[in-house]
Amino acid sequence: MPESLDRSAAQRFRAEVATGRHTGPTAGHCMGFAQANLVVLPKNLAYDFLVFATRNPKPCPIIEVLEPGNPEPALSAPGADIRTDIPKYRVYRRGVLVEEPASITHLWQDDFVSFLIGCSFTFEKPLLDAGIPVRHIELGRNVPMFITNMQCRPAGVFHGPMVVSMRPIPGRLVAKAVEVTAAMHAVHGGPVHVGAPEAIGIADLGRPDFGDSVPVYEGEVPVFWACGVTPQAAALAAKPELVITHSPGHMFVTDVPDSEVQDFITGMGGFRGGRG
Amino acid sequence: MPESLDRSAAQRFRAEVATGRHTGPTAGHCMGFAQANLVVLPKNLAYDFLVFATRNPKPCPIIEVLEPGNPEPALSAPGADIRTDIPKYRVYRRGVLVEEPASITHLWQDDFVSFLIGCSFTFEKPLLDAGIPVRHIELGRNVPMFITNMQCRPAGVFHGPMVVSMRPIPGRLVAKAVEVTAAMHAVHGGPVHVGAPEAIGIADLGRPDFGDSVPVYEGEVPVFWACGVTPQAAALAAKPELVITHSPGHMFVTDVPDSEVQDFITGMGGFRGGRG
Repeated sequence: MPESLDRSAAQRFRAEVATGRHTGPTAGHCMGFAQANLVVLPKNLAYDFLVFATRNPKPCPIIEVLEPGNPEPALSAPGADIRTDIPKYRVYRRGVLVEEPASITHLWQDDFVSFLIGCSFTFEKPLLDAGIPVRHIELGRNVPMFITNMQCRPAGVFHGPMVVSMRPIPGRLVAKAVEVTAAMHAVHGGPVHVGAPEAIGIADLGRPDFGDSVPVYEGEVPVFWACGVTPQAAALAAKPELVITHSPGHMFVTDVPDSEVQDFITGMGGFRGGRG
Repeated sequence: MPESLDRSAAQRFRAEVATGRHTGPTAGHCMGFAQANLVVLPKNLAYDFLVFATRNPKPCPIIEVLEPGNPEPALSAPGADIRTDIPKYRVYRRGVLVEEPASITHLWQDDFVSFLIGCSFTFEKPLLDAGIPVRHIELGRNVPMFITNMQCRPAGVFHGPMVVSMRPIPGRLVAKAVEVTAAMHAVHGGPVHVGAPEAIGIADLGRPDFGDSVPVYEGEVPVFWACGVTPQAAALAAKPELVITHSPGHMFVTDVPDSEVQDFITGMGGFRGGRG
């Protein structure tokens, strides 16, 4: 861990979120700490969801499965409360968005299981460090995301297409981008597709299904990575009685440094923040 | 896949097993196809076991989670029957070995969930191909395995120490062995420890807890990889009413070529044998 990364910064940021002093998106905040997607489901759906994640590890890299009913991510952010520490949540009933609250404490049930899922933000710093430009960061936009024609392996009620994020990469840097991200297999890993968007069912790169569009310049190739929106989309497609997620762009900030996510997920290496 | 690898060979081998023509260990048989550890548990324990595997992916790389009650590995060996296609099983009741049958059809329940877990046999061919000697293969023995003082992250009733396999590697080839196996992160990945066995609680390299001992020659370093016996040991430590595993050395042979296990587990790449 770089000396400059003060781990209490993540705790302070979550406290600002919990007390309503920070209400917006989390991109660019608490740089250096891994941010995570959230999916909360009742226990009776948790097994099928975990099998879905196991069968589709590229789009669904699990950072932590919380204990049923327990809102504390004891491994990745001890002391945090998953019900208050995200700026904005989405509450879906039978697949329909019914509420976008700043806390889910009022909805909490003893049988809720929370899944924290890796996010491609984690490999953007390593890409930049390797001299690879990241267009949506340059432009201050959200990453463009597309629904593909690649089907995930289903599990129980959960099914659906893989969602990918797209970054335009100069041709001479594509191999480097593959190399850098392939090494981070615990957070999506290497690209699932390079170039030829039509081959994975993307008709128009200018019209993403989620996020913002970004231009692809002359000499650049669109490169596609599996996206953490995939499991969220699968959870919604299943239309369960109730599912809660973070609101897009409003992520959970963990105590795990980006540079240690890989070791954290595999249970190896230096991360000592958790109690596990 | 090498042209020489005839995928029907795995099916033919399983048929020999199912009909009692092959009854012994599987090492050295059906070379080139991934062999897997088996753990069968009733559904009410399957969720906790899968969380255990998710929290400890290095010792517990999941190749496939079968549908509850269904004995067919539809993804990794379509048409196979997990109840008959392993030469020898072990049946434990409350942690005690009660039976070592050649079939578990008579014990099968509609709520049984079967887990196929990756095996380090899969990276031994790549090690050999890289010019790295594998001592227990040279000597025709089983790989030595040791219980360490490294605790797995617990999940529900499942807990226990990590079990490792040990291979003595010449000092000049240790880096190469790390490189080769790290690339196969879906089957245990790189070593969890190199040298200094006492640091992980191994008092005597000559007395493994499972498997056979092998000599470590002058100039060699003992290198330790996470072992698929770990989840089996955790399942036994939990002393569930009933758990069924393969008998050590008597593995399940899948249709997945060793060279494609990585892509198979991540759901990417070329493997097209399954129906998923």
